[in-house]
Amino acid sequence: MSMPARLTGVIPPVCTPMTPDGDVDTHSLLRLVDHLTGAGVSGLFLLGSTSEVAFLTDRGRRTVVETVTAHLDGSVPVLAGAIDMTTPRVLDHARTALAGGADAVVATVPFYTRTHPAEIERHFRLLRERTGAPVLAYDLPDAVQTKLDPDLVLALAADGVLAGIKDSSGDQAALREIITAGISGFSVLTGSELLVDTALLMGADGVVPGLGNVDPHGYVRLTRLCAAGDWERARSEQERLLALFPMVDVGSAERMGRGSASIGAFKAALRLRGVIDHATTAEPQIPLSDEEVGRVAGYLKAAGLL
Amino acid sequence: MSMPARLTGVIPPVCTPMTPDGDVDTHSLLRLVDHLTGAGVSGLFLLGSTSEVAFLTDRGRRTVVETVTAHLDGSVPVLAGAIDMTTPRVLDHARTALAGGADAVVATVPFYTRTHPAEIERHFRLLRERTGAPVLAYDLPDAVQTKLDPDLVLALAADGVLAGIKDSSGDQAALREIITAGISGFSVLTGSELLVDTALLMGADGVVPGLGNVDPHGYVRLTRLCAAGDWERARSEQERLLALFPMVDVGSAERMGRGSASIGAFKAALRLRGVIDHATTAEPQIPLSDEEVGRVAGYLKAAGLL
Amino acid sequence: MSMPARLTGVIPPVCTPMTPDGDVDTHSLLRLVDHLTGAGVSGLFLLGSTSEVAFLTDRGRRTVVETVTAHLDGSVPVLAGAIDMTTPRVLDHARTALAGGADAVVATVPFYTRTHPAEIERHFRLLRERTGAPVLAYDLPDAVQTKLDPDLVLALAADGVLAGIKDSSGDQAALREIITAGISGFSVLTGSELLVDTALLMGADGVVPGLGNVDPHGYVRLTRLCAAGDWERARSEQERLLALFPMVDVGSAERMGRGSASIGAFKAALRLRGVIDHATTAEPQIPLSDEEVGRVAGYLKAAGLL
Amino acid sequence: MSMPARLTGVIPPVCTPMTPDGDVDTHSLLRLVDHLTGAGVSGLFLLGSTSEVAFLTDRGRRTVVETVTAHLDGSVPVLAGAIDMTTPRVLDHARTALAGGADAVVATVPFYTRTHPAEIERHFRLLRERTGAPVLAYDLPDAVQTKLDPDLVLALAADGVLAGIKDSSGDQAALREIITAGISGFSVLTGSELLVDTALLMGADGVVPGLGNVDPHGYVRLTRLCAAGDWERARSEQERLLALFPMVDVGSAERMGRGSASIGAFKAALRLRGVIDHATTAEPQIPLSDEEVGRVAGYLKAAGLL
Repeated sequence: MSMPARLTGVIPPVCTPMTPDGDVDTHSLLRLVDHLTGAGVSGLFLLGSTSEVAFLTDRGRRTVVETVTAHLDGSVPVLAGAIDMTTPRVLDHARTALAGGADAVVATVPFYTRTHPAEIERHFRLLRERTGAPVLAYDLPDAVQTKLDPDLVLALAADGVLAGIKDSSGDQAALREIITAGISGFSVLTGSELLVDTALLMGADGVVPGLGNVDPHGYVRLTRLCAAGDWERARSEQERLLALFPMVDVGSAERMGRGSASIGAFKAALRLRGVIDHATTAEPQIPLSDEEVGRVAGYLKAAGLL
Repeated sequence: MSMPARLTGVIPPVCTPMTPDGDVDTHSLLRLVDHLTGAGVSGLFLLGSTSEVAFLTDRGRRTVVETVTAHLDGSVPVLAGAIDMTTPRVLDHARTALAGGADAVVATVPFYTRTHPAEIERHFRLLRERTGAPVLAYDLPDAVQTKLDPDLVLALAADGVLAGIKDSSGDQAALREIITAGISGFSVLTGSELLVDTALLMGADGVVPGLGNVDPHGYVRLTRLCAAGDWERARSEQERLLALFPMVDVGSAERMGRGSASIGAFKAALRLRGVIDHATTAEPQIPLSDEEVGRVAGYLKAAGLL
Repeated sequence: MSMPARLTGVIPPVCTPMTPDGDVDTHSLLRLVDHLTGAGVSGLFLLGSTSEVAFLTDRGRRTVVETVTAHLDGSVPVLAGAIDMTTPRVLDHARTALAGGADAVVATVPFYTRTHPAEIERHFRLLRERTGAPVLAYDLPDAVQTKLDPDLVLALAADGVLAGIKDSSGDQAALREIITAGISGFSVLTGSELLVDTALLMGADGVVPGLGNVDPHGYVRLTRLCAAGDWERARSEQERLLALFPMVDVGSAERMGRGSASIGAFKAALRLRGVIDHATTAEPQIPLSDEEVGRVAGYLKAAGLL
Repeated sequence: MSMPARLTGVIPPVCTPMTPDGDVDTHSLLRLVDHLTGAGVSGLFLLGSTSEVAFLTDRGRRTVVETVTAHLDGSVPVLAGAIDMTTPRVLDHARTALAGGADAVVATVPFYTRTHPAEIERHFRLLRERTGAPVLAYDLPDAVQTKLDPDLVLALAADGVLAGIKDSSGDQAALREIITAGISGFSVLTGSELLVDTALLMGADGVVPGLGNVDPHGYVRLTRLCAAGDWERARSEQERLLALFPMVDVGSAERMGRGSASIGAFKAALRLRGVIDHATTAEPQIPLSDEEVGRVAGYLKAAGLL
């Protein structure tokens, strides 16, 4: 599928199921994809942070993209993260993803190295020039330490360098500045899964919710209620999802990082719901204990998902 | 060469010369290696931050290691950075570097992802187990946001998991805690190029100075004066190098990041000294202007290096 | 006035007008208070960050509270910031403010010192016990480096220790967690002046907008539209205020800090609108230039406020 | 006493003993002062972070200065912290301290508010102009979030605005830049109590060690060995103090902040050594448990101090 002029609705960041050995579990991956598309999502975001892109080898990344695009056959657009430290390395990932069938690439600002607005601008311009593909900026300061400047985003959008943004910065005021500029052909997607109704009230185009792996139907309902202007029922749906979200905190902060806990909870939930075969997460992440998995199950039951 | 029981002296993080197209300039790289070994350095650290490892593609990284190890033929030990976000990706780089002839690998804690001490420990243990090679920890919180805990370093050192540390944290008190523990077979290297005399007074084994690319003779003299206990003359030599260091700030902070400025200055100096052919830095870094290169030359002249 | 069970509507953080010598300009302060109450605000927040509380001497702080409470004579509730580093110092400020007629005090977590959740809890419990007055927590991590944990806030609210929160953290997901808990007798106020409609959609009680000094009528209209469930017109009003807000950035970032720029802009706007006599800000803040004040005037004209 | 042209030797940041009710325990304070001066310290720094200045009320601060200066009667110079958020408030503290007999004031950059180099410069210039007294800059980014720029420090030193600096930033390279500039009449003091020998090797003038409350004799010996150029024995003395320092970590990080733990340990040690009557720390700090105090005693015994 080629990219639509504007991405809307729910575009979940697809978890990457793994075998107990840590390889990509392609069977489970395709069941997950069907689970998502069957719920009515309007696109898929592969190789994002929720997909454990930071942990996947180059081979694993390629497998994910090729497996999914071959299966989908163009039914919904596929975005692929090209996540690495700087332009030359991001370009390598972007080319592989595009060759594998992705419709667009998603890239952060440079990280690990100390960067600068002029370098960030150059980075995105080079990505666009050298791939020729739609490029979305991924604003994720928790991971890359640099908040994307809304003014730079808007300048790059107006120049046709950026086709969109996935905003996971949590900075709703900056997001609003981007939304209200109303750049044509530029898609504004929020990654803040607990603020979907408010983002759509502000005018955001779509949502990329990690929790959407677990309850894609809920997020699809939520975006449709917003599109219909039914803000009261939208709020209720959002609050239902809000009550489900604390599953990401069941993993003990004394034993593991917040990444291990949240990815571990999503995968545990997907396994409990029968979507994937194993809840394995990549090294060096720490697995949830049985007791913690039991608490994930409790959240699912309370939400009527188990 | 196999690794010595303890690394000492000067082990510079070797700059990666590039052609104007951004490829590794292997001819210049070997001239730089000869420039360093000719000055009496006791090892080389390839693919560190000063080597622009964050910018090098996988192919470029392999070229650097293979070019240098083939040339050296074991005369000094070669350390290679295996710099990536998490264990599976670091392992891929480590295996390639070791296959290419490196004697040891240097790795940071996980980054991009939110990590935890238990995950950091697991990360280094897996690197050691799965490579079988000497692993040095690279403490670089400016790049990876997490300061290595000295207690964890010492535990991993005592267990034989870590063969050493390259400390670029700037935290001299934490460094001292590691040094004074005096773990046998564990090398403590400081990356703080302006604090070599004081690190060696504390008992550090060696130094990994970025500025050592530009003036390796100075750093070799400095470590020898320290080894001889001549702290007054060591201080004078260190102060001479301190006066040379501000070359890293000639690049305008309004136009570029501090990485562009410092790597740009080192490469400009190496070109001015006739060691390498081009001062090209990798994308998306911003090049020094002619006026700024002129100021680098001024520093070299003042130091008697041009 | 005694405190209402729940604070709602617009409770602006009142700027502190100063004479050219830096003393509190009580005449201008009372004109500003009349400007705000005349617009229909439902309370006043004195001695907040927008009030330059960090710059006011103890004498200046006392003057502000006593001047305003004597003038108002109980017509709207008066909240007063008791802003200092730790419990004993905050208690001194709180007692002075309450003696001066304030109805409630607003306090941050400890700062300057390295703090801990157990110390934060003890801090608020002691403030409540030793003043006997309503205490609101002021969540302002930009100033105090520590984000208030929503779980702690809710526990203190449920215990009757906290009467409310002024959330200026920008973290809308955490704010939503507090709101949806729905603690009785606990007021949730947002300080995010560009996200009022979305905060009220989520269920927040009221808003503490710095920009409300400049356009209190706009904020009162906005909260009334939200209360009426007219989210489309609320969004339009919010977007109008969004367009006014960039006045806080006219002060050159090369010459001054963001505090100087934002407070300077608010005071320049109030002087231009004839509400206060001088735009003086406290030392060591840098004043806006005439050209920058001219740009503030441009924003006011564009918004129909001049 | 008037200030010497250059401060040298050991100038401990004096702990503030408190009664169980949290008032300044003046009897214990004077015993502590005698303990310090008897050991040969060359000055006293009152109202620093180690003195719990952030917790002391205005009255408590005044009591500390007046009590100590009346007792000393000019035998050693007395520096007093004037610690508050901005210029007007710092000036109030500075005037009180000078009126109370302090010989110089020590001030940080503005905090709580977002600051800027131009404002920091203005801050120190105003402090100097309006007090007429010697002003030392206190570089403590952990508390105030802003690292003092060495170039600004040197410019203010050269202009006679600053009489010295107390560097607790931990940034030894920046400290070295200031030291090597060699500004006449400007005293460079390090607050890094584990890096005294190396700081003095670099050329620092003196040291302000929190641990010097517990073992002033050790620090006096250490600085004398350095002054004599006996770097080997200096290192041994420093390593002995290094082994004593972990007492600051006996307080459980699960129960308390690092401030509570370190101040609590110093006060427990002083009480165990019979210098002060109570180990009380100010609210809302968490006290050490009996078991933790027992571990402090263990460190003292191991060091021959009990």
